[in-house]
Amino acid sequence: MRYRDAGVDISRSDAIKDQVIAEIRSTWGPEVRPLVGGFAGVMRYPAVAGKPPMLAATMDGVGTKLHLAMQAGRLDDAAADLVYHGANDLLVHGARPLAFLDYVAQAKLAPEAVLDVVRGLARACREVGAALLGGETAEMPDTYLPGVIDVAGCMLGTVDDDALLDGSRVRVGDHVLGLAGSGLHTNGYSLARRVLKASGLTLSDALPGGAGERVGDALLAPHRWYGRSVLPLVAAGRIRAMAHVTGGGIAGNLVRVLPEGCLAQVNAFAWPRPTVFQWLMQVGEVPEEDARTALNLGVGMVVVADSGDAGAVTAALQAAGETVWPLGVIASGERGVEWLES
Amino acid sequence: MRYRDAGVDISRSDAIKDQVIAEIRSTWGPEVRPLVGGFAGVMRYPAVAGKPPMLAATMDGVGTKLHLAMQAGRLDDAAADLVYHGANDLLVHGARPLAFLDYVAQAKLAPEAVLDVVRGLARACREVGAALLGGETAEMPDTYLPGVIDVAGCMLGTVDDDALLDGSRVRVGDHVLGLAGSGLHTNGYSLARRVLKASGLTLSDALPGGAGERVGDALLAPHRWYGRSVLPLVAAGRIRAMAHVTGGGIAGNLVRVLPEGCLAQVNAFAWPRPTVFQWLMQVGEVPEEDARTALNLGVGMVVVADSGDAGAVTAALQAAGETVWPLGVIASGERGVEWLES
Repeated sequence: MRYRDAGVDISRSDAIKDQVIAEIRSTWGPEVRPLVGGFAGVMRYPAVAGKPPMLAATMDGVGTKLHLAMQAGRLDDAAADLVYHGANDLLVHGARPLAFLDYVAQAKLAPEAVLDVVRGLARACREVGAALLGGETAEMPDTYLPGVIDVAGCMLGTVDDDALLDGSRVRVGDHVLGLAGSGLHTNGYSLARRVLKASGLTLSDALPGGAGERVGDALLAPHRWYGRSVLPLVAAGRIRAMAHVTGGGIAGNLVRVLPEGCLAQVNAFAWPRPTVFQWLMQVGEVPEEDARTALNLGVGMVVVADSGDAGAVTAALQAAGETVWPLGVIASGERGVEWLES
Repeated sequence: MRYRDAGVDISRSDAIKDQVIAEIRSTWGPEVRPLVGGFAGVMRYPAVAGKPPMLAATMDGVGTKLHLAMQAGRLDDAAADLVYHGANDLLVHGARPLAFLDYVAQAKLAPEAVLDVVRGLARACREVGAALLGGETAEMPDTYLPGVIDVAGCMLGTVDDDALLDGSRVRVGDHVLGLAGSGLHTNGYSLARRVLKASGLTLSDALPGGAGERVGDALLAPHRWYGRSVLPLVAAGRIRAMAHVTGGGIAGNLVRVLPEGCLAQVNAFAWPRPTVFQWLMQVGEVPEEDARTALNLGVGMVVVADSGDAGAVTAALQAAGETVWPLGVIASGERGVEWLES
């Protein structure tokens, strides 16, 4: 029995190695220390006024969006989404991206798929300003179903002590703003895939009720990153709290950053619900309550701002390219989120 | 169609949430900022003489050792191994552990399995001095085979500029030392599982040729962490280079930290080969060459030291609990590793 008979051929991925390395290096600034054959990535950590900022970190998976992405030949986009997802999670705490590390696993490594993934990761890392500092590819025939891939990753970032957002700044009377998303982002894809199947449509069919876009484009729209528009406001101390709308929906995520005694009242009809969500709910016969938990319904990020500044914050976000809706207010009450139905 | 019909029930893991949180918090020192409902982990980054050290990071998976660990009901040990693995990878560059983030994925989340994993991670994090700063659990029925679990993780650490080991310190004439491992560590398990099957033995049978230990204990021995013994020598500038012996074996990993013009000559019989490796090679009819690539063969970490200091380094490592063998020397020649067969 030779080693490669046992299902692992460590030389197979050599073919794409150079391309992968080139992609990775395209994300490196002078802060990264290139280590030939390194066992780990090493980089300089920033200092602000001679002091290291706090380290923020989050781990995420792409989830089942990967399956649709594979079908559509858009693995790179799904991988990029993972970076945007992690960067948005950090952003909630006022942190800016510093570095990213990925984990790519399959039953049998398809070098082209790995390259697609790394291409997407590298592109998104360049966009959010993170160095792709490391990664692991795993080949596990007895763990993964044939032909599928899983991609997870760890986003690292930094946040100055006085910029840290931890929910404690929220005050009764604050305004709640919703920032438009670009689609499902990276959430609700188990549901979406079932609905797609039930609908009998393919990814290249037109989205029913849409303006001509294809189902695939609607379902695979990239996860929007909000850092470019939001970070300047964070630095200026004008954001009280943020919530990245992922699993759990608007309410399930907003509640996570509310202090005791703060009840967010959110108008369920404060924004136009994008066609793709209407289609998913209709074809899937998804009850309103479930849709609000499973899907972002068009709001990718929630921002809480002082009532007196909310108008100016809205204007600044709009000027930076965001679509912003006033969702509601922070009322006095038991910590939670209340939906207003009119 | 309700959301939980689509294969994901986000409330199912609530049962173990409290226990998981308690495990996680057991790894936190005062440097970690507890964020209620946080979207990311946030912690203070250390400063040495007012300056932040460099950040080191690595991503790893446990690999197929997980299958044996599941069989043996020792998921916690396999999870701990992932932490030791990452900490050893950082150690190669002179870095000490700071924080760890995990990714746990299954077809259907088994809360007890997740708790086992987190228990093992937390125990190992406490041992190596890393805060378990974040993690993601993913449930993906169309990605993972039923009943299996995958665990990956990102280890973060710090290294002072002047302690960074990047291979450049290695000199012709240096001595190469081998530090005993505790078994296969986290490598060669695709091979080991095939051999186990071919042997007809179970995990609870005695290891043939062994001193009474069971096959399961031999195959699942925890991945040894070398930081406690090695870091003081790194801080004292007495280590020229290190190689963590994982996939690729001794030669495949040692070559990664050699500069041009340095040929490591390693005596293949400089250390006693543990019974478990002899058994794997014999039953699996594994050629010597393949065994050297697939397995660590008993040497978990290679250390390169100045020839004049190698004896004292050996003594210091032994005093700290390591078993150390002189493996060979760094000769002048083409960058690589040469096996000496006598």
